[in-house]
Amino acid sequence: MGEFGIIEKLRHIAKGRSKKIKIGIGDDCAVIGNSELDTLATTDTLIENVHFNLRYFCPKTLGEKAVAVNLSDIAAMGGVPLYILISLGIPAPTQVEFVEELYEGFENMAKKYNCSIIGGDIVKSNSALMISITIIGEIKKNAFLSRAGAKNKDKIFITGVLGDSAAALDLLKEARPTKNKIIEKHLSPTPRLEEGQRLAGEIGVSAMIDLSDGLISDLQRICDESQCGARVYLDKIPISIRLRELGKLSNKNVLDYALYGGEDYELLFTINENRSNNIQKKWQNMKTPITYIGEIEKKRNGITLVHRDGKEEPLAKSGYDHFLNSADIKIN
Amino acid sequence: MGEFGIIEKLRHIAKGRSKKIKIGIGDDCAVIGNSELDTLATTDTLIENVHFNLRYFCPKTLGEKAVAVNLSDIAAMGGVPLYILISLGIPAPTQVEFVEELYEGFENMAKKYNCSIIGGDIVKSNSALMISITIIGEIKKNAFLSRAGAKNKDKIFITGVLGDSAAALDLLKEARPTKNKIIEKHLSPTPRLEEGQRLAGEIGVSAMIDLSDGLISDLQRICDESQCGARVYLDKIPISIRLRELGKLSNKNVLDYALYGGEDYELLFTINENRSNNIQKKWQNMKTPITYIGEIEKKRNGITLVHRDGKEEPLAKSGYDHFLNSADIKIN
Repeated sequence: MGEFGIIEKLRHIAKGRSKKIKIGIGDDCAVIGNSELDTLATTDTLIENVHFNLRYFCPKTLGEKAVAVNLSDIAAMGGVPLYILISLGIPAPTQVEFVEELYEGFENMAKKYNCSIIGGDIVKSNSALMISITIIGEIKKNAFLSRAGAKNKDKIFITGVLGDSAAALDLLKEARPTKNKIIEKHLSPTPRLEEGQRLAGEIGVSAMIDLSDGLISDLQRICDESQCGARVYLDKIPISIRLRELGKLSNKNVLDYALYGGEDYELLFTINENRSNNIQKKWQNMKTPITYIGEIEKKRNGITLVHRDGKEEPLAKSGYDHFLNSADIKIN
Repeated sequence: MGEFGIIEKLRHIAKGRSKKIKIGIGDDCAVIGNSELDTLATTDTLIENVHFNLRYFCPKTLGEKAVAVNLSDIAAMGGVPLYILISLGIPAPTQVEFVEELYEGFENMAKKYNCSIIGGDIVKSNSALMISITIIGEIKKNAFLSRAGAKNKDKIFITGVLGDSAAALDLLKEARPTKNKIIEKHLSPTPRLEEGQRLAGEIGVSAMIDLSDGLISDLQRICDESQCGARVYLDKIPISIRLRELGKLSNKNVLDYALYGGEDYELLFTINENRSNNIQKKWQNMKTPITYIGEIEKKRNGITLVHRDGKEEPLAKSGYDHFLNSADIKIN
């Protein structure tokens, strides 16, 4: 079941019938027009042993992450999160303390980002723990950034560094006793809300997405929705010193983590080539860095990786089939 | 894990921090104040082999029901549904045709009630099929009906008939080859949206809830939130001719289905005693009947069942523990 096929089919079946829907199926987050403000709505589900393992998540950290990954979808529009609904599927032997700690995690994140848990439900599950979260937010009318606005020659930027989360997941799976700080990047990702909101207010920013499935997968989504291709310079991809050191120790190719790993929850955005110097200057006071990594190209080129030696590697689109490669298909 | 205990704890942990939240944790549906209109938001999750069995649900019917039970929560506020978000957890061997038919079901219901599917996600599940739906709706400012407004001496009414759904579920579980029309009442419940909207506009209607967990369980929720008790006249409970006939054939007590069965998705509402004659007169042109079944009393009395012979049976509150008795705890 391929992502691209099924989303097209679902788009066809579920055509929005309200003219107020500005963004429906096909983005991370839906946008509904509402007088002065646009309403944002996004939903994400995490299932035990598919998206997380209780061997390395305590309930509080899991609750925090479940909210964080949904906040990241609001961040990717440049929006402000407001209200949270949480559905839990709980296997029978679960202790009430476990559920309370999970809720503490939900509430920690809600508090940190000034939003409110307004409801949800708790149902029995017959095997795995399931957490389904919906977040409702808002943004100034038409200020949202979708995946569809990238233009030929736009520069591609990302916030933060890439690959830490996927490398950490490998460490966790190997159950290597480690105090490596990189672990935090997988367990407790930070939704880039402030950064997203600021970018939504910048002239020239044309498209944005959060990197949940890996740089290449998510860049492909921008390319699909914006009808364009892209060129990525591998020597520009920002990788943390910690990840570089880990790569040396473990003999792993850290670039693979950065390109294909996913769950970094950084933002990728495109910006008009004439505005890119400006944004870099204006960004200097921000804690999270932004890094230029490539350019948008014409659609026929697809995505091209440019190696350090200048060698160009065109990527085959069939490589990013998400229902096969990762666990999720986003349909909004 | 008792419902009443955990909801109280979650209310305490997750205190809404926005003054715009009119109804948060503790009702079927959240209400957010938004200038001229209040926004409604509700979420409900269905898990395979807990809430449904694919032996007797085809994917389209299942999709329709999953949306219908969420629409019922909007109906219970008297609201208008607008936008639907759907998260699916899908076990690996699922065919793409199955998912498409499920979506046809979602879309059928969306179309029927004039709302739009605006997004969601599809994730892998390792065992059971999981459907989590969020619906966003609206209602005229402060016109919503919560569970908290019932007053001493108010009359209690319900729409439609009770018990068909639970009786049908028993037939389905027994896999008795039957063409009994009662089966439809379980597979394809009707959300009482028109009825709910009309009741929200009637003077004197003080509280409303949809009957998802059974008359007694849901009436207990009204009593808890409204700080009251209630008296129910058993000979007034409306039971369909089909269910009465089925009861005779199977030697089952059909009243048990009506009182404790659940999933009828009818509305229970309370109305000022002086307005109850008026509503009955005005309701005569409506297709779905309403029936007077009892009165609100003072809290100390709890819920009392009044038998045909006048015998009064006080119910122990501990009998309605939902995480034990049924599969769900609603926390909004």
